[in-house]
Amino acid sequence: MESGDKVLFSYAGTELKGTYITERNKKAVIKLENGYNIGVDISAVKKTESPKAKRAVPKKIEQDKNLPALSIISTGGTIASKIDYRTGAVTSQFEAEDILRAIPGLKDIACFSAHVPATILSENMTPEIWKTLARTIYDEIKNNTNGIIVTHGTDTLAYSAAAISFMVKTPVPIIFVGSQRSADRPSSDNVMNGMCSAKAALSDLGEVAVVMHGSTNDDFCAIHRGTRVRKMHTSRRDAFKSLNIKPLGRVDYPSLDVSLEEHAIRRNQNKSELFDKLEENVGLLYFYPGMKPDIIDAFSGYKGLVIAGTGLGHTSSLCIDSIKALSETGTNVVMTSQCLNGRVCDRVYDTGRDLLTSGIIEGEDILPEVAFVKLMWVLGQENNPSTVKELMRTNLRGETERCLHNEL
Amino acid sequence: MESGDKVLFSYAGTELKGTYITERNKKAVIKLENGYNIGVDISAVKKTESPKAKRAVPKKIEQDKNLPALSIISTGGTIASKIDYRTGAVTSQFEAEDILRAIPGLKDIACFSAHVPATILSENMTPEIWKTLARTIYDEIKNNTNGIIVTHGTDTLAYSAAAISFMVKTPVPIIFVGSQRSADRPSSDNVMNGMCSAKAALSDLGEVAVVMHGSTNDDFCAIHRGTRVRKMHTSRRDAFKSLNIKPLGRVDYPSLDVSLEEHAIRRNQNKSELFDKLEENVGLLYFYPGMKPDIIDAFSGYKGLVIAGTGLGHTSSLCIDSIKALSETGTNVVMTSQCLNGRVCDRVYDTGRDLLTSGIIEGEDILPEVAFVKLMWVLGQENNPSTVKELMRTNLRGETERCLHNEL
Repeated sequence: MESGDKVLFSYAGTELKGTYITERNKKAVIKLENGYNIGVDISAVKKTESPKAKRAVPKKIEQDKNLPALSIISTGGTIASKIDYRTGAVTSQFEAEDILRAIPGLKDIACFSAHVPATILSENMTPEIWKTLARTIYDEIKNNTNGIIVTHGTDTLAYSAAAISFMVKTPVPIIFVGSQRSADRPSSDNVMNGMCSAKAALSDLGEVAVVMHGSTNDDFCAIHRGTRVRKMHTSRRDAFKSLNIKPLGRVDYPSLDVSLEEHAIRRNQNKSELFDKLEENVGLLYFYPGMKPDIIDAFSGYKGLVIAGTGLGHTSSLCIDSIKALSETGTNVVMTSQCLNGRVCDRVYDTGRDLLTSGIIEGEDILPEVAFVKLMWVLGQENNPSTVKELMRTNLRGETERCLHNEL
Repeated sequence: MESGDKVLFSYAGTELKGTYITERNKKAVIKLENGYNIGVDISAVKKTESPKAKRAVPKKIEQDKNLPALSIISTGGTIASKIDYRTGAVTSQFEAEDILRAIPGLKDIACFSAHVPATILSENMTPEIWKTLARTIYDEIKNNTNGIIVTHGTDTLAYSAAAISFMVKTPVPIIFVGSQRSADRPSSDNVMNGMCSAKAALSDLGEVAVVMHGSTNDDFCAIHRGTRVRKMHTSRRDAFKSLNIKPLGRVDYPSLDVSLEEHAIRRNQNKSELFDKLEENVGLLYFYPGMKPDIIDAFSGYKGLVIAGTGLGHTSSLCIDSIKALSETGTNVVMTSQCLNGRVCDRVYDTGRDLLTSGIIEGEDILPEVAFVKLMWVLGQENNPSTVKELMRTNLRGETERCLHNEL
């Protein structure tokens, strides 16, 4: 069989049609008619048709240099994926003009310059790539761009938005955008998300944000603060949600009107600044009942560990000695809550007070994943434990609101 | 100072009043007027008043034996806490009549028998206590109770409800209930949650459920399936949410009318059965970008590991060799998603297909915490890897709905 062959096969007792893409690990990778890829035994696949290849030479896209300048920075992922329409395979190759070809409406909004610091599936994102990304973004700000769009796979998009929030202080919008469904699927969200992100990047916003579908209707994109957002669904287009604060605003569709809430930081409110150091030796651990202390011991030698405890920020009493040992040997341990919403407070119950005595830093109302990224960043700037503690509990990029504990 | 003394102290620049409870780790534990406890330096605390002790001898509570029989099983936690009204200290001591004393309305609903298999802060819950709890519940079903209320600390309440869902097949309602705020706080939810749980325990329901505030108004409690619920807020009274399915029903308040949805399992639909074996050597790990494989290696020797991957169920490519090694040395590895909502599907992207080849079991739409408990239970019943895989992907207690992957 060759890439692009139409095939018929049986899966879970059902006859299915698709397009053969490639062989991988002795399975045939087949693109189903609904756009998803599936791996099935090669022996179960029958070829039904070999369409002639029709490969158009892509036309050069003309941009209007009188429009405001925007930067588009790609790291890979579904929204940046180039579809080979013959085979249906989704790859993450990206050239300057690919996104304009995929979303033609963009060239009526702005004049884009494109940069590709990485081409990865976002589950392979690393702190090292965050550093490259931060520097690329900072250079574009220095080049007087009006705003930046970062296209990113949705798996770790929220982690990266948080990382860049800490690493780049910005006077212009830095908009992370992705797509939950690839461009060749009828339900793809790439055009609407792309158009809305461009408008957000030209708006009066002055911070790092995520722009994605706000509902499952194609009626608006929500603008989420980069340090307050989490992917909360595996496949829905409105998977991204603001937690613990309201979204910063919205971009209506198809009108593309942008509205910003009062708490959104405005354009030029901050000056540009780059902090591109990260301590990579940091971990994140969700506590579970019956956890054996050896799992906490496994983080021995780490510079930092964020625990997502239960409730107000607890682990079992059994784990506290190991946490204390970590803390005493130089690991900065931050407590957050696996509830995701709400604030930790370890002054209420006995276990919490024991944890405080063992040296943990309370992570306030910071999301576990954001605390993890923030701790990498703080330890990249500071070594002194009391400064680290103070910075972790201070609102640096809108990631937390401090409150007096008696106001709980 | 003595327990019960009224005190004045300074905290975070504010003068605060409270009641001295005890000394712990060189800190004075003080109950604030809002009901929360706080630890402060003893030197900062000034006594203002020593009220005379007034300790009433509790009256014996008469129960109406003509009312239907319900069982109340306490494991500790805020709802079962007995308040020492002189000191304000919250302890988890529990006697048969304490809950009826705290919630007097209960004795007009049913005639209660009480059992106390454990008295713990729920972050200290263990698989061993789940076994004791399961046996206590099963004995009560055998004793022809009409329904069971399990009072439980909210930190790990959802984990325990899932564990009991797998361990006890039940013809009668098994209702887990807790309280987010202790009985001495004006905003306590213990009375409403307790009353609603009793009505749910007498209802037509025939499965394990969690009954807690459905909103921040005191207007109804939601009834959540034990295998589909998660604590989603550190302190709100409506912290518990059904994920991936609708709640099973509701108990309106103060009318106490119970309504059940169509998908709720009905009373006597199942026969009672006890499965009290659990494999305790099981872990849960949330993946994060930049994770070093040594953390996965730390689960070497475990019988099971649930990973909460990103998106549709991914880790970085860097981690796949360690996952494969675990799998090849006898650890059953189940993939779920840290998105919490939605379904994993590792047939779409390259990383997912590599994970499948490395031996992971797809956790369908099971919550990570529920998959963790289910894996303990499945491995308690079965050793054969292919049976384990089949059971993990089969709907046993309403924890998953299987779907054909081409319907995604």
